[in-house]
Amino acid sequence: MTPSDRKAVSRRNFLAASAGVAGAAIARASSADTLADVPPRVLGDALSGHSERSQYVDISRIPEAGPGMRNVDPSLAINSKTPLQKLVGTITPSALHYERSHAGVPNLDPAKHRLLIHGMAEKQLVLSVDDLKAMPAVSRIAFIECTGNGWENWKSADENLTVQNTHGLISTNEWTGVPLGYLIDLVKKDRKSTWMLAEGGDAAGVARSIPLTDEIMREAIVAYGQNGEPLRPAHGFPIRLVLPGYEGNLNIKWLRRLKFGDEPWMTRWETSRYTQLLANGKAMQFQLRQEVNSVITSPSGMMEIKKGYNRITGLAWSGYGKITKVEISVDDGKTWKAAQLNLPVLPKSQSRFQMDWEWDGKATKIVSRSTDEKGNVQPDRASFIAKVGTNALFHYNAQQTWSIDASGRVRNVLA
Amino acid sequence: MTPSDRKAVSRRNFLAASAGVAGAAIARASSADTLADVPPRVLGDALSGHSERSQYVDISRIPEAGPGMRNVDPSLAINSKTPLQKLVGTITPSALHYERSHAGVPNLDPAKHRLLIHGMAEKQLVLSVDDLKAMPAVSRIAFIECTGNGWENWKSADENLTVQNTHGLISTNEWTGVPLGYLIDLVKKDRKSTWMLAEGGDAAGVARSIPLTDEIMREAIVAYGQNGEPLRPAHGFPIRLVLPGYEGNLNIKWLRRLKFGDEPWMTRWETSRYTQLLANGKAMQFQLRQEVNSVITSPSGMMEIKKGYNRITGLAWSGYGKITKVEISVDDGKTWKAAQLNLPVLPKSQSRFQMDWEWDGKATKIVSRSTDEKGNVQPDRASFIAKVGTNALFHYNAQQTWSIDASGRVRNVLA
Repeated sequence: MTPSDRKAVSRRNFLAASAGVAGAAIARASSADTLADVPPRVLGDALSGHSERSQYVDISRIPEAGPGMRNVDPSLAINSKTPLQKLVGTITPSALHYERSHAGVPNLDPAKHRLLIHGMAEKQLVLSVDDLKAMPAVSRIAFIECTGNGWENWKSADENLTVQNTHGLISTNEWTGVPLGYLIDLVKKDRKSTWMLAEGGDAAGVARSIPLTDEIMREAIVAYGQNGEPLRPAHGFPIRLVLPGYEGNLNIKWLRRLKFGDEPWMTRWETSRYTQLLANGKAMQFQLRQEVNSVITSPSGMMEIKKGYNRITGLAWSGYGKITKVEISVDDGKTWKAAQLNLPVLPKSQSRFQMDWEWDGKATKIVSRSTDEKGNVQPDRASFIAKVGTNALFHYNAQQTWSIDASGRVRNVLA
Repeated sequence: MTPSDRKAVSRRNFLAASAGVAGAAIARASSADTLADVPPRVLGDALSGHSERSQYVDISRIPEAGPGMRNVDPSLAINSKTPLQKLVGTITPSALHYERSHAGVPNLDPAKHRLLIHGMAEKQLVLSVDDLKAMPAVSRIAFIECTGNGWENWKSADENLTVQNTHGLISTNEWTGVPLGYLIDLVKKDRKSTWMLAEGGDAAGVARSIPLTDEIMREAIVAYGQNGEPLRPAHGFPIRLVLPGYEGNLNIKWLRRLKFGDEPWMTRWETSRYTQLLANGKAMQFQLRQEVNSVITSPSGMMEIKKGYNRITGLAWSGYGKITKVEISVDDGKTWKAAQLNLPVLPKSQSRFQMDWEWDGKATKIVSRSTDEKGNVQPDRASFIAKVGTNALFHYNAQQTWSIDASGRVRNVLA
């Protein structure tokens, strides 16, 4: 953020909101001009090799079970979700990056792991992790999103779901590793090769065919670093593919093979699993890019709010690039107002938005709508279903509505 | 990073380096076109509430003791340092953000913690953590650096020090909280108030007088979030002041008081501890901004390298804003070459640089030199000492030299 950007945020936007917030804060504030109301100084514990969380912070990827919710026994889970309602800013802590695995989390020894690069190229290479770490590296802040994120509300809405349940399959990390373009140059990929197979080393052997567009050859990373440190095992240790803006399942974890070819391999992950069953009964394959999306994370499902000032905040993202606008309606879509977008807005990353709101205490519905730099606008649920139908499971990016009753209870509803 | 920026990185810079790296990689690569050289698929463990580190990753803030090094018993330590030599990218994991405390790490209950805001203002407020979380928030990626960072090499150089020992008192996180400017508006600070006292809730009661420049009023944050989640206790939970670009000790942890006044309070932290004893015997007070700086993190102290291709990489930063240039010399300062700066370069954050290097196997010294957007250039050690002398302990930002002997051993030396 440049100083002038920051000035715009801290002065123009916040001054406008001061009246409402000031009222709320002062109601709870003391008029004492001494430290009498502030707890005394506290002697500390010894320093440590790692700073762990406070005992007072309760934050987990396993959603809490609400009344009527299905069992979330972690030993049976196939995914664990980022608790968006408890996070701030835009970076997701590595420990809380969402997890979606098809055969659990393999515990790989990096000294033994290898990456085979072969197929339509002059050279075939088997690279160790140390080989990759010795190569030029890039770092990039980018979101990864499971293409199933949001499907809970496609057909019906369980009112006991939190935003962790409905939208917790997305996270934003800084990824570091070797640019795919560098490896392409290294093996001298045949110019006729237009597809690449990427395969993981877990028991499920997830393998996907990736079209070698200019964008993907420029932006994909064979990553070994996540938020500054080595990848966590749940996120692909020791190496994974990072493909900013594209379906999470293409960001192959525990990567062991890249193969160049001139047509897709039609693996079971693309002929069966990650196809879209359309309204007309036909299946669409290779719908790879994640759409423009947003969700209000506070107030959100299962929270309770009070009459008066409330800060609305949430996250917006698009696989097409930067978010340019987020609008919020506090009257169920009748009128919309632009939210403030926190700077810097990075492409293919989650962007934080916020808006001040004086709630009058009457039952209402709140909803957000995002627009990206390509002009894509997040659809409302009716438009989305009119276009895509209800047969499919993936790429649901319709607007999320939270209902608020007169007592301030916030619940998940279908628009 | 924009697509065009990324193109510049991945194509222009990396193609130029391909010849050297390709040679290194191919020497270790197989010519097999099958998966025979790649370990088999592995069944995974169950999913979890948090993704912990791999058992194969050894990473800690407590530096390993080398031959001749002083004791680093953590129970006696007054700081624990970020292991820069083991990190990648620019973000520091929260658990590995450096730690420097004057009375250990207090374990505060956020429900009971309060922030008093008083002094020369229309209103006095006592705010709870929930009050602050309800206010408009900003997030910003910024470094925090202990002003003592680097002093180990001011007077002499222990050849057994790693870069964690010499430069590990700096870290870069995403900080989230309420802009100071917002709180200033809220209490209607008197325009005659030009200083602010910030005081922490640890037993040491660290308290500093902060000049209310336009820049500080615009950029300072009362932060409750660190890399997306609540602050860790070692870093100020539940709230701390974040003052991008300024001495770490001004970024008051466990913040319990902000007081507005029209002159500095002359606390013992500014009359005694954090003053600079100059060459002429006089003490300089309120030297608050962190200078332009850089260090090569690989190869660095106690590493061993091999003849042939080596990637040089490191971190550069400045309290004045963005880094605009990093130069590297591989011949002890005789000739310099511009390193590649990874994008995006954020102001008052650590920026990652790298350069390809073909080492001829002869003993040499390597060193980096950074320049910021205000034109400040990191000085060499002789120039620095000629200007500042050797009486002081703080604000050492001279260039760091690593010596490499013919066997490839990398050691800390004095330029």
